[in-house]
Amino acid sequence: MREYDKHIIEQFLGVEVLQLELTYKYMKATFYEGNKTFSVKDTEVKEPAAGEVRIKVAYCGVCGTDVHIYHGMMDKRVSIPQIIGHEMSGEVDAVGAGVEGYAVGEKVVVRPLDNRKEKASDKGFSHIIEELKFIGIDSEGAMQQYWNVPAFTLHKLPAETDLKKAALIEPLSVACHDVSRGRLKAGETAVVLGGGPIGLLVAMVAKSVGAQVIISEVNENRIAKAKDLGFDAVSPIKENLVEYVKGKTEGRLADVVFEVAGVQPALDIMTEVAGIRGRIVMVAIHGEAKPISLFKFFWKELELIGARVYEPADYEQAIKLIVNSDLPFETIITATEPLTNIQGLFEQIDSNPEGMKYLLNCQE
Amino acid sequence: MREYDKHIIEQFLGVEVLQLELTYKYMKATFYEGNKTFSVKDTEVKEPAAGEVRIKVAYCGVCGTDVHIYHGMMDKRVSIPQIIGHEMSGEVDAVGAGVEGYAVGEKVVVRPLDNRKEKASDKGFSHIIEELKFIGIDSEGAMQQYWNVPAFTLHKLPAETDLKKAALIEPLSVACHDVSRGRLKAGETAVVLGGGPIGLLVAMVAKSVGAQVIISEVNENRIAKAKDLGFDAVSPIKENLVEYVKGKTEGRLADVVFEVAGVQPALDIMTEVAGIRGRIVMVAIHGEAKPISLFKFFWKELELIGARVYEPADYEQAIKLIVNSDLPFETIITATEPLTNIQGLFEQIDSNPEGMKYLLNCQE
Repeated sequence: MREYDKHIIEQFLGVEVLQLELTYKYMKATFYEGNKTFSVKDTEVKEPAAGEVRIKVAYCGVCGTDVHIYHGMMDKRVSIPQIIGHEMSGEVDAVGAGVEGYAVGEKVVVRPLDNRKEKASDKGFSHIIEELKFIGIDSEGAMQQYWNVPAFTLHKLPAETDLKKAALIEPLSVACHDVSRGRLKAGETAVVLGGGPIGLLVAMVAKSVGAQVIISEVNENRIAKAKDLGFDAVSPIKENLVEYVKGKTEGRLADVVFEVAGVQPALDIMTEVAGIRGRIVMVAIHGEAKPISLFKFFWKELELIGARVYEPADYEQAIKLIVNSDLPFETIITATEPLTNIQGLFEQIDSNPEGMKYLLNCQE
Repeated sequence: MREYDKHIIEQFLGVEVLQLELTYKYMKATFYEGNKTFSVKDTEVKEPAAGEVRIKVAYCGVCGTDVHIYHGMMDKRVSIPQIIGHEMSGEVDAVGAGVEGYAVGEKVVVRPLDNRKEKASDKGFSHIIEELKFIGIDSEGAMQQYWNVPAFTLHKLPAETDLKKAALIEPLSVACHDVSRGRLKAGETAVVLGGGPIGLLVAMVAKSVGAQVIISEVNENRIAKAKDLGFDAVSPIKENLVEYVKGKTEGRLADVVFEVAGVQPALDIMTEVAGIRGRIVMVAIHGEAKPISLFKFFWKELELIGARVYEPADYEQAIKLIVNSDLPFETIITATEPLTNIQGLFEQIDSNPEGMKYLLNCQE
């Protein structure tokens, strides 16, 4: 029984529906309309085209990119009105022609990268090809009840997967990719600059590979949250971060630094806190050229490593962590709202700078 | 017969000396005295201490660092008056107590890194330890007739080695290290930004590993020189370098970029000319923080790789190239002067910005 349909019909008929058999044609979908506004509309549920799968979306998280879109920063890239969203979980609802290996009801997540325009000059790096399309930004996203996507974007989840937690698989895959790009190993020390949602996920993945983790964060509430989660967290304003890390590493300093803060002081300290042959993973997106101490790169033979989205193996690692590990990923979920309250949710995000991860329940 | 001794004695006695047996105690050594001045003095030839070898220095090249010292830029680091120089070749002249495996007359070069203060926190990266001493800067260098060095700094040369060419082994080892740090492989494309002596050496090593090499250089004479050596060389002022490299790589752009120019336009273009997952090796030394497009690092998953000095394997590779390859390394030698004309040589370097590598003949 589709609870949302049942609820609508009950309201319309004014009676309680005990059982429902319905060939539906309409669903709720949300549209970014520009000017910090979302609309919620009844739209047609489309049949999946050849090669596509229709997903009944369970949850969809709000990415920093979605907030950028809401703020109008990406109006040139999105096609207003547009359904956005890509941090989702759901179940297979229908399978298009030619799609094999998926059955209705199977739990899945989408790796929202459309790399169908891959060329030889992309050198096989399929996740960052020159003509990459990001599904949910460059095309229709998941903030709707039913979503048609190419079957090649799917990763299966075990039947026992909690679909709410599973909405964190996409951002967790980002963190897995960051840690993988940094070649972080057990016994090494990772310093994470920035203790927001991505910083905490990076810290959890770093911990899962057996590294010592130190989080540097200026916000006291976030420091407290990181400490609650069992992390060593320190304010670089109150303490000398370099001396602190030196003290925790017998002078070795950080083997890997994750720059997640996106501010100049983090760029200044990242080359200081990295030890000899340290790797610095650039997780934050800096839109403009920023001053970097190239001398430190020379002196300590540092590496700066760019990281963007994820590869299939990162998704598989994230799925394993969500399903099997006891790391407290769900603690980063600040609030969950019904799909129909998308406007309220984005306003809530704007009014609470200390919030972490917000989800939409796409069937409510 | 020691030609220099013979010459001095002939001048003193006013007769021609046909054969000479001499237990010498004195030699010529040059001293940086500050204020763009070198002195040449008779100094005692010292016995090698335990663990040391005395080398009869054949040739000593002038490094960019030596020119910096001459310009007074490193007066805080050197100990005036100081013998400098480290790009040398020579022969074993005497062996100190406890040194095994070296015989008088064997040809050698010195890897001028004193890593005797290595600690656990240096993580085994012996060539860039925190308390590294650079022999010839932090201690007495090779611009003298005889030079005592720790035996662990020596690399043996085959008997047939041309000692003049062998003075290029140290800077060639820098180039080998740069190419090794960039993980450059056969079939890849390397773009070298800057066609000075180090840029040309990097280009030659890149060619030796089987890479396609494109040199970007603004000076027309240097472009002509690079072309004479068989390299694809282009002016980034006259041509659109990115389009040029794209055209030479079927759109892939550079797999590895070597930033050897040390100027902001090179830092600006290095992230443009690198293809997806391109590696950028920072060869130039930038004393101050410089703006870098971190967005390009994110977008194309670029890597910036610091490279400093060399490891033993780089020396062995450079020795093989000097002895066995037919790459025209000696063409970068602009002039060779007698040790006693060190002042004239440094003045010549200052007056000829297009010069490449200058050598001192340390026995003349």
